[in-house]
Amino acid sequence: MKVLVLQGSSRENGNTELLANLAVEGIPHTTIRLREKKILPILDQRHEPDGFAAVADDYDEVIEAVLAHDTLVFATPIYWYGMSGHMKNFVDRWSQSLRDKRYAFKDALGQKQAYVITTGGDEPRIKGLPLIQQFQYIFSFVGMPFAGYIIGEGNKPGEIMEDEKAVADAERLRDRLLAT
Amino acid sequence: MKVLVLQGSSRENGNTELLANLAVEGIPHTTIRLREKKILPILDQRHEPDGFAAVADDYDEVIEAVLAHDTLVFATPIYWYGMSGHMKNFVDRWSQSLRDKRYAFKDALGQKQAYVITTGGDEPRIKGLPLIQQFQYIFSFVGMPFAGYIIGEGNKPGEIMEDEKAVADAERLRDRLLAT
Amino acid sequence: MKVLVLQGSSRENGNTELLANLAVEGIPHTTIRLREKKILPILDQRHEPDGFAAVADDYDEVIEAVLAHDTLVFATPIYWYGMSGHMKNFVDRWSQSLRDKRYAFKDALGQKQAYVITTGGDEPRIKGLPLIQQFQYIFSFVGMPFAGYIIGEGNKPGEIMEDEKAVADAERLRDRLLAT
Amino acid sequence: MKVLVLQGSSRENGNTELLANLAVEGIPHTTIRLREKKILPILDQRHEPDGFAAVADDYDEVIEAVLAHDTLVFATPIYWYGMSGHMKNFVDRWSQSLRDKRYAFKDALGQKQAYVITTGGDEPRIKGLPLIQQFQYIFSFVGMPFAGYIIGEGNKPGEIMEDEKAVADAERLRDRLLAT
Repeated sequence: MKVLVLQGSSRENGNTELLANLAVEGIPHTTIRLREKKILPILDQRHEPDGFAAVADDYDEVIEAVLAHDTLVFATPIYWYGMSGHMKNFVDRWSQSLRDKRYAFKDALGQKQAYVITTGGDEPRIKGLPLIQQFQYIFSFVGMPFAGYIIGEGNKPGEIMEDEKAVADAERLRDRLLAT
Repeated sequence: MKVLVLQGSSRENGNTELLANLAVEGIPHTTIRLREKKILPILDQRHEPDGFAAVADDYDEVIEAVLAHDTLVFATPIYWYGMSGHMKNFVDRWSQSLRDKRYAFKDALGQKQAYVITTGGDEPRIKGLPLIQQFQYIFSFVGMPFAGYIIGEGNKPGEIMEDEKAVADAERLRDRLLAT
Repeated sequence: MKVLVLQGSSRENGNTELLANLAVEGIPHTTIRLREKKILPILDQRHEPDGFAAVADDYDEVIEAVLAHDTLVFATPIYWYGMSGHMKNFVDRWSQSLRDKRYAFKDALGQKQAYVITTGGDEPRIKGLPLIQQFQYIFSFVGMPFAGYIIGEGNKPGEIMEDEKAVADAERLRDRLLAT
Repeated sequence: MKVLVLQGSSRENGNTELLANLAVEGIPHTTIRLREKKILPILDQRHEPDGFAAVADDYDEVIEAVLAHDTLVFATPIYWYGMSGHMKNFVDRWSQSLRDKRYAFKDALGQKQAYVITTGGDEPRIKGLPLIQQFQYIFSFVGMPFAGYIIGEGNKPGEIMEDEKAVADAERLRDRLLAT
């Protein structure tokens, strides 16, 4: 089992990053901080005669990492009750990968396991639920099992470590990842 | 009443654009296509001693247009069961405007009316509901009344005009905007 | 096409009833007012050796009407952000029908079309969305296509007729039912 | 702190009951099994000149227990992606209590803490989310803080005890209740 953390936070050592780090502590894994990659918003060319044009940015590199791992952890702060723009820009581009002849993108995702780790400061266990539902639709569309999610509450730097439930959930996820 | 359409589509003359155009046909309005603006994803500096640093892109220009209008129409295709990355990048940056001393951003938004127009190809009236709930939380956070939303179904270019319900909804919205 | 309205309102001529009546005006249909039937809450006997015991109430009579129609309109006021208890008691009992050897209940439902008509007084187009999502899961479980829904706003008796959007939606549904 | 468990399950020793028992083990509490009470579905008389007529059933007795406790645990299995009919019948009747001059029902609820414990067999952590959102709207309407929720997965009798996350959540809730 090879674990890839797709980190959508825009801030170093933010609460989402701390919680995701906890979940993969001691487990061999790769973390990609989407904020350190250049990933342009999608240009929808699904209906162009020639389809999508190649884009000169880091997107393909991230997709290749996705394809090379078995377990994907989508870690994103709740920004405005959704995933961060960094992560949304990345996911939107999947429309391009679905049509990319170099990959069997959808088939490959269907063989993986997806987890979501998200944190927010404004009642995240309620107001983060539309985001969870959105991820469910995303994963379902590509046939990737949604193996679990963790919602943590924290606002100030480091505050997430005081959310006992989120910490326990992250530790349980770590045990689960270790066992597979 | 001054109407601003914030257009989140990445494609010219996409279904969302057609539906939004219908809703404001014959009404003086401004449309900003977010894809034509350079709006960087947020860098979360809420917890930095000096707060947010100025960003050299078109974001402030769009915000000034927002502040100069009374009615905001958030028009976005449903990309991966959420708003487009273009629009998400824009909304994420509101965290910066909330702390920008040049504006009383939240107070100003509280005086406006927000509408959402969205279209999608995969059961949008069901699978677009988390997006509507997300907008509700967004608008509620800034105290801006959520005056209504339209969900349309369409995939191929132009298909939205065959969605009788969406077309009727857009025409009704136009009548409502005309009457105010 | 044979249309059955399952009316979950507890009040005569309530807003939900008015809106549902409008949607089937001029169309041969049957209406069952669940409040006029004796339908007991379920006693979960799924795990009993002998399964469900027969219940002496009107439930089977309603199910037989369901089976005898092609189009089912679930009409319920939004009570406390969900379907009425009258309707929930009825739906809960489906667990019994799924195991009832007299019927191929699930197969039969899979051949029908389901619509939802619901009205409420407290921002129903937002706060009624969890109910729509619940119906989606219900219909999906039994494989019954969710052909559409109407959410209306009204509180005082008759107020629904002032909700232009709901009225237009009901008329459009009527046209659609007439055309099939 | 006085704890009342409102038990909505229709089955003795069902998974929801086991999980709720675990959460209050060793804590003085009252459990009311709604299935053992006679609680009729509401008859909506909000708009009658004389308002609601008295109903000869056990509802008032349950409400008086509600009023006599500080912490309310709404324990319900997920039946058809919502609360059980037993519980819905009970909640629907709150419309009556809101207008009952014997109580200051809403004010009293605003002084309490509400928890939800729910279990289901079909992806409850995803498909139970509309139910959580519904409870959020319910509690918000009466101004009662939504202090937390637990979603457990189990289908066969006793299976919930194998859901490590739900068990840990119940134990954490117990600690929290003990500490207050």
